[in-house]
Amino acid sequence: MYAEILTIGTEITTGSILNTNNQFLSKKLLDLGIDVHYHSTVDDNVDRIHDAIRLALKRSDLIITTGGLGPTADDMTKEIISKSLGLDLILDEKMVNTIREKFARMNSTMTENNVKQATKLKGSNFLKNSIGTAPGIFLKHEGKIVIMLPGVPSEMEYMFEREVIPLIKQDYTILKKSVNTIGIGEAELEMKIKDLLDMYPNISLATFPSDGQVEIKIIGRAIDEKNLERNMSNIVEIIEKRFKEYIYGYDNIPMEVAVFNLLSKNKLKIGFCESCTGGLISARFSRIPGVSKVFDRSIISYSNNSKIEELGVKPHTINKYGVVSEETAIEMANGLLSRSDLDIALSITGLAGPSGDGEEKPIGLVYICISDGKNTKTIESNFLGSRTIIQDKATMKAFSELRKFLLSK
Amino acid sequence: MYAEILTIGTEITTGSILNTNNQFLSKKLLDLGIDVHYHSTVDDNVDRIHDAIRLALKRSDLIITTGGLGPTADDMTKEIISKSLGLDLILDEKMVNTIREKFARMNSTMTENNVKQATKLKGSNFLKNSIGTAPGIFLKHEGKIVIMLPGVPSEMEYMFEREVIPLIKQDYTILKKSVNTIGIGEAELEMKIKDLLDMYPNISLATFPSDGQVEIKIIGRAIDEKNLERNMSNIVEIIEKRFKEYIYGYDNIPMEVAVFNLLSKNKLKIGFCESCTGGLISARFSRIPGVSKVFDRSIISYSNNSKIEELGVKPHTINKYGVVSEETAIEMANGLLSRSDLDIALSITGLAGPSGDGEEKPIGLVYICISDGKNTKTIESNFLGSRTIIQDKATMKAFSELRKFLLSK
Repeated sequence: MYAEILTIGTEITTGSILNTNNQFLSKKLLDLGIDVHYHSTVDDNVDRIHDAIRLALKRSDLIITTGGLGPTADDMTKEIISKSLGLDLILDEKMVNTIREKFARMNSTMTENNVKQATKLKGSNFLKNSIGTAPGIFLKHEGKIVIMLPGVPSEMEYMFEREVIPLIKQDYTILKKSVNTIGIGEAELEMKIKDLLDMYPNISLATFPSDGQVEIKIIGRAIDEKNLERNMSNIVEIIEKRFKEYIYGYDNIPMEVAVFNLLSKNKLKIGFCESCTGGLISARFSRIPGVSKVFDRSIISYSNNSKIEELGVKPHTINKYGVVSEETAIEMANGLLSRSDLDIALSITGLAGPSGDGEEKPIGLVYICISDGKNTKTIESNFLGSRTIIQDKATMKAFSELRKFLLSK
Repeated sequence: MYAEILTIGTEITTGSILNTNNQFLSKKLLDLGIDVHYHSTVDDNVDRIHDAIRLALKRSDLIITTGGLGPTADDMTKEIISKSLGLDLILDEKMVNTIREKFARMNSTMTENNVKQATKLKGSNFLKNSIGTAPGIFLKHEGKIVIMLPGVPSEMEYMFEREVIPLIKQDYTILKKSVNTIGIGEAELEMKIKDLLDMYPNISLATFPSDGQVEIKIIGRAIDEKNLERNMSNIVEIIEKRFKEYIYGYDNIPMEVAVFNLLSKNKLKIGFCESCTGGLISARFSRIPGVSKVFDRSIISYSNNSKIEELGVKPHTINKYGVVSEETAIEMANGLLSRSDLDIALSITGLAGPSGDGEEKPIGLVYICISDGKNTKTIESNFLGSRTIIQDKATMKAFSELRKFLLSK
């Protein structure tokens, strides 16, 4: 069964709202073993909606629409699909009452235009909306399934989970596993797993790159769950052997969580001294629930003075080597270590640009220092891009180097 | 000119990645006066990509594709479009060298499959990729424009801003102005600008809510620039009169930039002491180019100990009132002020959750203190939501309160 997700709404084609429904539905359908071939979005225009629906009915077996079920004039999904399929719209008196009661509960009155939410196509069934007023529609028609859902994500997601999944659940089992790597390019990785692609006909592999990392995703589908599990494990083991030094986690664990796990396991307390990243490393780390177990403090020493006053960097070091230098990075990290009972400190100093602020060094030059008092490691990097991109890449690099440092301890 | 955005990639149709490119491009095209009628997404399948491209060429004048320009076997955008249009792919030796140099700068070697990134369709031009390796493609063909961009959002966005916009700018003048408000609801605001919607036929107004703020966007389009400017100013003046107390800036200036501008104007140096936000306030502030003029340092005092050691908070205060309290917030801000030559300090302490870490106070409770030595203002807030949402709302609140504090000085 091949699916298409059709979004209807000018608020999406003008970019006023980010479309998150497609991702939600694609993930859920994948988990149900249903391949999604198309996402399409069309603005609130009768002819274009009509064309988009005709096209979807031609090329897909399962069509899920989101949006256009509300009470206003530009909510036209049901009306247009009813015309496209030649199925009359019927007013359901029971649903009129249900909607009227909802309005009463919200201490509001149902206006006349709300009545159209209680119509359904001949032969279709309503899908209950527990959050909003517009019900969804489930229709089987000439071998195709058409499901109409509201556009508001909370309503749509709730309806899909409770009402739709039981209706379209397939018989076979789907298993998924992701292996997350860093330090190896997508092209090289793909070449090295080519032989695994045809190993089992019901297990597929795909690679997804982002931010210098590559995810290897393994998806299996079968009726015999035990056999599938065995084959999946087999493939994962082969991948683990081949890419041992590049694997940093599983199932899309963020790099900072990998670092957090290593620190927790070894009962280590960390602190950061950030200059060019201005708090980004600390902020990303602080997103992790329970981070207080391993995260004690950070000094955002943005100005030269603050590096001297808060971290004890020597003015001489800054004058001689520059504030963006290996030497300054080392004094920052060791400065924080010496004035606290932290186990590890990571410092970062660099030029994020756009202006060099009088520095003669190139924008994008970043020094990271990681120290535990005994071992001190410094890393020089050159990043390309805008200020934001340089800050993001430097943050990613910091966590990635920190992970390596912790593994080598 | 009607545009279609075509996304190519199984990572989108499987829901592995959220498609943010469509929203970015739709917004930018709207700003250029180009209407987007369709978003379409198709998985990495030769026949379906081929069909999607043919369809887009039939129904749209400007087609922007994202994704499928990389080095791997499932990157097929250029190859398929070249076949669809009957235009040969030509290897560009200069581009091969450019890509090779990029790999060299990254201390990496260019593998053979990377060469295909240096091909372009006959009659097309490359679009420079300043961040990644795959260049984009710009093609004018039989009255249509086809633009192929990389799928990675940072690369795509940078390329669109720098390389594409100058090429597709239209002959008529587009003027845009955004008025940013806070403290007034979208529904109320919309009612109060209703009469302005039809004031000039070539000037449209729209409202965009986000994070408790509402943007009023005014877009005008005309050949006679002077007349348009006059009419735009007229509308903006009316809006300013009506919403004076709610306007905090123009043209989507982020709240932190409004704060930065006020600090710059008054030549004030600021520092932050963050607990529950873990560096998020500093990180967001540090995104601003040139922030070093007003931003000196921050202390991310995540643990109780670090509040005592780094900021001089009294252990007695923490014991008596709790670490999440007005009293602790005040001692944090004044502690930073007294140990530096800063003009203003903002402190924040709260419970971001999910666990209360032994605190008996409710998750979402946050205290902010702003002090300039003479005036000290504290604000208590209660935020609902996940850890991430509480941290984000608290950060937003901090900048919003800081702006008010600076205005009242």
